[in-house]
Parts: sequence; C-alpha cells; structure tokens
Amino acid sequence: MSNLAIRDATLQDIPAVVALLADDDKGRVREAVGGPLHPGYIEAFAAIAADPNQHLLVAEQEGMIVGTFMLSFLPGLSFRGAWRGQIEAVRVASHLRGQGLGRAMIEWAVERCRERGCRMVQLMSHRDRDRAHSFYEGLGFEPTHIGMKLHFAGEHV
Amino acid sequence: MSNLAIRDATLQDIPAVVALLADDDKGRVREAVGGPLHPGYIEAFAAIAADPNQHLLVAEQEGMIVGTFMLSFLPGLSFRGAWRGQIEAVRVASHLRGQGLGRAMIEWAVERCRERGCRMVQLMSHRDRDRAHSFYEGLGFEPTHIGMKLHFAGEHV
Repeated sequence: MSNLAIRDATLQDIPAVVALLADDDKGRVREAVGGPLHPGYIEAFAAIAADPNQHLLVAEQEGMIVGTFMLSFLPGLSFRGAWRGQIEAVRVASHLRGQGLGRAMIEWAVERCRERGCRMVQLMSHRDRDRAHSFYEGLGFEPTHIGMKLHFAGEHV
Repeated sequence: MSNLAIRDATLQDIPAVVALLADDDKGRVREAVGGPLHPGYIEAFAAIAADPNQHLLVAEQEGMIVGTFMLSFLPGLSFRGAWRGQIEAVRVASHLRGQGLGRAMIEWAVERCRERGCRMVQLMSHRDRDRAHSFYEGLGFEPTHIGMKLHFAGEHV
C-alpha cells in the first residue's frame, strides 16, 4: 500500500468514482454510467464539497482511482454530545480486491475520525455482503445493530 | 396526537432532551443527568444549530417535551447523487410509550425527508431493541442491513 494516496475527490474524479460505484452487484442497477455524467452526481459533489463535515474520498494508485468511500462527521447529543464518524459507499476496483486496499481505506477513515474527536465510527452493510461483515469485524467493528431503510421510489437495492 | 407539536429544539430544551436520552436502558449509562448541564451537550447543540442539514427535534405536548430524535440530511454520490435522511436517537418519555407518539414522530420525519427530496430514509436500531424493529417495519422500513459500530472508548453500549 506504500504508493496508495487517499484524498478528497475533485470534480475530475467523479466519472471514475461513479464507475467504481457501478462496479458492484448492487451498484450496477443503481448508477448511470456511460454517456454524459448524470447531473445528479455533479449536484451531489457540490453539496459534499460545500460541507466541511462531508467528505468524498478517493484512493489513488499510480495515477488511477482504485477505491472510494464517503466519510461523514455527524454531531449529536447522545453520549454527552459525541461526534460520530459514518462511512458509506465503500468500493474497491473489482480487479484489485483482496490486496488490502479496502483495509487501508477503512483504517485511514477510522484514524481521521479519531483525530476529529469522534467517539465512534459507524456504517451499515447490506445483509447479503457476508465477506464485508467479516472484513469490518476484523477491523474492530461490532455488528450490534440492525440497519433499516425506507425507500421512496425506484429499486429497493 | 392532535395537540402534538414537533419542532427544532432550542437551547432551553436541552436538559429535557438529555433526560429523555437517559430515560432508556442503554441511555442510562451513556448520559450525564442531574447537576449542571455537561458542556458536551451545549457544544453539540451549537454544532447542530449551525448546520442546515442537522436537526435535533422535540415533540411537545401540553408544554412538556415528550419525545426527541435527530434527523440528518446526507448527500452522497450513490443512487445518482441521492440525498438520504437519517434518523438517530429516538426517544419517547417512558410513561407515554405505546400511545402513538413514536409513530407520529417517525411519520413526521419521513415526510420531511420526502419533501427534502431524499431518495430514502435510514436508521440503525440496536439488535436488543426487538420492539423497535417491529415498530419501524410497520412504518415501511426494511431490515436489509447490518449496522456496525467501532467505539474508541467508554462503554460499548
């Protein structure tokens, strides 16, 4: 991982990030790839870039975007006013899985949360993603909660 | 529920909100109640109040704070740049449970997410809270995910 750089995404990275989001059993039907960039992605990037508590990260290796995830810092009153970190939308390029990139990304995220003074880091992983659960448990996450979603429209994926 | 008002919390509501957070099997050991207000709560309230995507809500009935929850609006690239609503720290005063207050609060939150253009609403509920899971399923939430947490310090509750 010595040549892996993790940094905030720029607008120029968005097509590569969308391709990573779509390079996944569930993401395949959720995203719009090919052709001009869907305006929803550009609007989302602008909202993230404008908010110091929202970060879209990319992992870059030899000039290629090989991974991505979202990291949010969330305030709340619980736990005596603790901040929490939240990780979402983790993807590693399919041809590079199993090489420790995901581990490096999550360890980096957890360290940023610790520096930021968060009391905890949380994430939700789809029940179908068995390998992901073992992966996160190996990094210290405990599967103590049920993650529930209510979808307003579109595919329930 | 006709006399129930749901609104953003003010600084004056914070002691009542903290009391509600602590009025719970898990919250009891997490929160600091009695005596002067822990400064962590005031700092958290300030962070929430400063961020248009973070809302600490209270449910008020006949001048009493009878419920609370957090509602966050989170940007992200997934689902073609969809916003998502996230609900946390839901509490109803213990002597008023089972009367539909929680349902009114969550339905209110879901409606705000819909108005805000969110594609989904998500939450995590501790595995131990069986009654909460049925409650949320009755409101249209699907238990499709595992919620995982990594705690840096303190009680793993």
